[in-house]
Amino acid sequence: MSEERWRLPDGIDEVLPPEAAQLESLRRTLLDLYASWGYELVIPPFIDYLESLLTGTGSDLDLKTFKLTDQLSGRLLGVRADMTPQVARMDAHRLRRAAPTRLCYLGTVLHTRSDGFAGTRAPLQIGAEIFGHDGVESDVEILRLLVATLTAAGIDNAYLDLGHVGIYRALAAQAQLDRVQEMALFEALQRKAIPEIRELIERAGVPSAVGDMLLALPELNGDDALARADAALARADAPVQQALARLRAVADETARWLPELSVHFDLGELRGYTYKTGIVFAAFVPGWGLEIGRGGRYDDIGRVFGRSRPAVGFSTDLKGLIAQAPAPAAAPQPAVLAPWSTDPALQATVARLRGAGRRVVYRLPGAADTAGPHAEVLVADGDGWVLRPAAEA
Amino acid sequence: MSEERWRLPDGIDEVLPPEAAQLESLRRTLLDLYASWGYELVIPPFIDYLESLLTGTGSDLDLKTFKLTDQLSGRLLGVRADMTPQVARMDAHRLRRAAPTRLCYLGTVLHTRSDGFAGTRAPLQIGAEIFGHDGVESDVEILRLLVATLTAAGIDNAYLDLGHVGIYRALAAQAQLDRVQEMALFEALQRKAIPEIRELIERAGVPSAVGDMLLALPELNGDDALARADAALARADAPVQQALARLRAVADETARWLPELSVHFDLGELRGYTYKTGIVFAAFVPGWGLEIGRGGRYDDIGRVFGRSRPAVGFSTDLKGLIAQAPAPAAAPQPAVLAPWSTDPALQATVARLRGAGRRVVYRLPGAADTAGPHAEVLVADGDGWVLRPAAEA
Repeated sequence: MSEERWRLPDGIDEVLPPEAAQLESLRRTLLDLYASWGYELVIPPFIDYLESLLTGTGSDLDLKTFKLTDQLSGRLLGVRADMTPQVARMDAHRLRRAAPTRLCYLGTVLHTRSDGFAGTRAPLQIGAEIFGHDGVESDVEILRLLVATLTAAGIDNAYLDLGHVGIYRALAAQAQLDRVQEMALFEALQRKAIPEIRELIERAGVPSAVGDMLLALPELNGDDALARADAALARADAPVQQALARLRAVADETARWLPELSVHFDLGELRGYTYKTGIVFAAFVPGWGLEIGRGGRYDDIGRVFGRSRPAVGFSTDLKGLIAQAPAPAAAPQPAVLAPWSTDPALQATVARLRGAGRRVVYRLPGAADTAGPHAEVLVADGDGWVLRPAAEA
Repeated sequence: MSEERWRLPDGIDEVLPPEAAQLESLRRTLLDLYASWGYELVIPPFIDYLESLLTGTGSDLDLKTFKLTDQLSGRLLGVRADMTPQVARMDAHRLRRAAPTRLCYLGTVLHTRSDGFAGTRAPLQIGAEIFGHDGVESDVEILRLLVATLTAAGIDNAYLDLGHVGIYRALAAQAQLDRVQEMALFEALQRKAIPEIRELIERAGVPSAVGDMLLALPELNGDDALARADAALARADAPVQQALARLRAVADETARWLPELSVHFDLGELRGYTYKTGIVFAAFVPGWGLEIGRGGRYDDIGRVFGRSRPAVGFSTDLKGLIAQAPAPAAAPQPAVLAPWSTDPALQATVARLRGAGRRVVYRLPGAADTAGPHAEVLVADGDGWVLRPAAEA
């Protein structure tokens, strides 16, 4: 038995010293960063009624969500697998402000199965959202804050994948696809499965002008995709053109603010298609296949909570950030060892040292060494107490 | 539908601004306090195999623990309802240090039903433990750190209930009670149900000398309980006397370190009896019926994880601390509003202000007011940018 009891479930980890202190330090750096940008912290609940968690989010999140039965109400609860819907609810139902509202959040989310973020089932999700503004500027501010987040974590070589779900959505409408056809084609597009896409388009009887544009989507990726899109989507309806114009405006404004940032366009990339409504993006680090951050615009999510507000946001995983850019672990300052004594002069000295950020450990009688590596001890010197190197004491 | 979607399950709360910032601030204060005392942060997993979570903890924790089925392993998982067993496992299995080890932790735990801590089912548990030392001094250091925690949270009028589970355990052994009788009597003692205690003692055929001592236990509470215990437990076996002597030693040492602290003794109070082995304590605030903090010694808990180490610790609830001693919410510093412009001089000014701790919000075009209450705006002044009161701008 006992050799089994310490096992952890797959994808679930415990964090020991000194990694836990490193996580805490990055947590503070990022929350302070967000506060300095005007983002207010909120703390969504860990569990929630399932229907609240899954509202408008699509079946992917449903499958990822652990379900619990509530003994008190008899209803189904879910463990949050994403905090975005909960934060949208706070904005829509509790805060109800007229002005744009910037919120940030941090906490563990749980997934029934691992995906992305290095195989973990318990990412430490951190993110930020702007509610109440539908312009290019809020899209770009969120992109800037994502980049600032990566930079603060020591990641300066990330690049961005940028798309707009409105392009495919409007093309599917122009092609008069029904919901089933639209989702099947979406699935195939995600895999860039050209023969399958071609077959779906033919089977749906889509006119060739629109069909060609749908077929062009998976090819419209790369640094020059926007330039090529003009020709490839020339015969598209106004809604397609509007989405394309918005994407171009976001790209231009991003280039003004972040001229160093490498941006790849991908018009067939549709992360979170079921609830996103505008730009979608993901950040990557060269040499690591998984996203380091992601986000987009989802203007409709608050509606079921009583108020539809434009919304754009990003999220990342604090553990993933640490894994990709292990901050040089600051050598812990050596501890100070104090004798077990209530001498008032000693207590005053200990309080002063601790107040100045030193780690002071009382020696527990009978124990060889209670402080781990330490370099200094407090020794009596006349009426007072002074620090001495441990070797001398 | 939509008017229902925002409801939260009973005992589950979401934390909005500015309360979330207040929680974050107290969190940092306490983790910094623990670090300055030499306690290293660990982060236990949110879910764990059920048998790991419940090992040696008794049925109370079992009933409080939400259960989940793991799709990957098919095994039962639990959502942590207490982090103490997880921290003991880290000490016993992963850290395996020879020296005494001081650990601290903070995180949400979930309970199927609310109890204590103001009816919440999701306390934000924070606590500290010493592993590897079985002397009076580690008992007292933990009591001191609990008091320092309350003081740091602004609670300076707490009092302590102090007992020792070894006294009842040894008396039950002297009375030759079997496990069922011992637990039945324990239950009755917790409720100080004298007639029931008397009946249980008689039914078990306990000799009157021991029976009288068991009957005396629920009366042995109050400031003078230790003085009265000498006479009341004079005929007890050596193990009872040893437990009593230890409790006295802890009380004496506590009085030396914390002369101002009000301590009530209660020899019939046996919180966590099924896994505690030494002192047990709880902190209370006058006028609030529930514990604000609790803890004790549990020397055997690491054994099932491969290594039995002496252990003593306390825990409290960050939300409970805030509720009992709402820190005077610092009036948030007014935000600075900046125009949406990539002007390099403006960006440098914004970076400098943010670095100095100011909250700088870019005005989103088309939005009336994006910053909430704010008192200053950045305006162009020659080649540079200067702060002006918002009213003037």
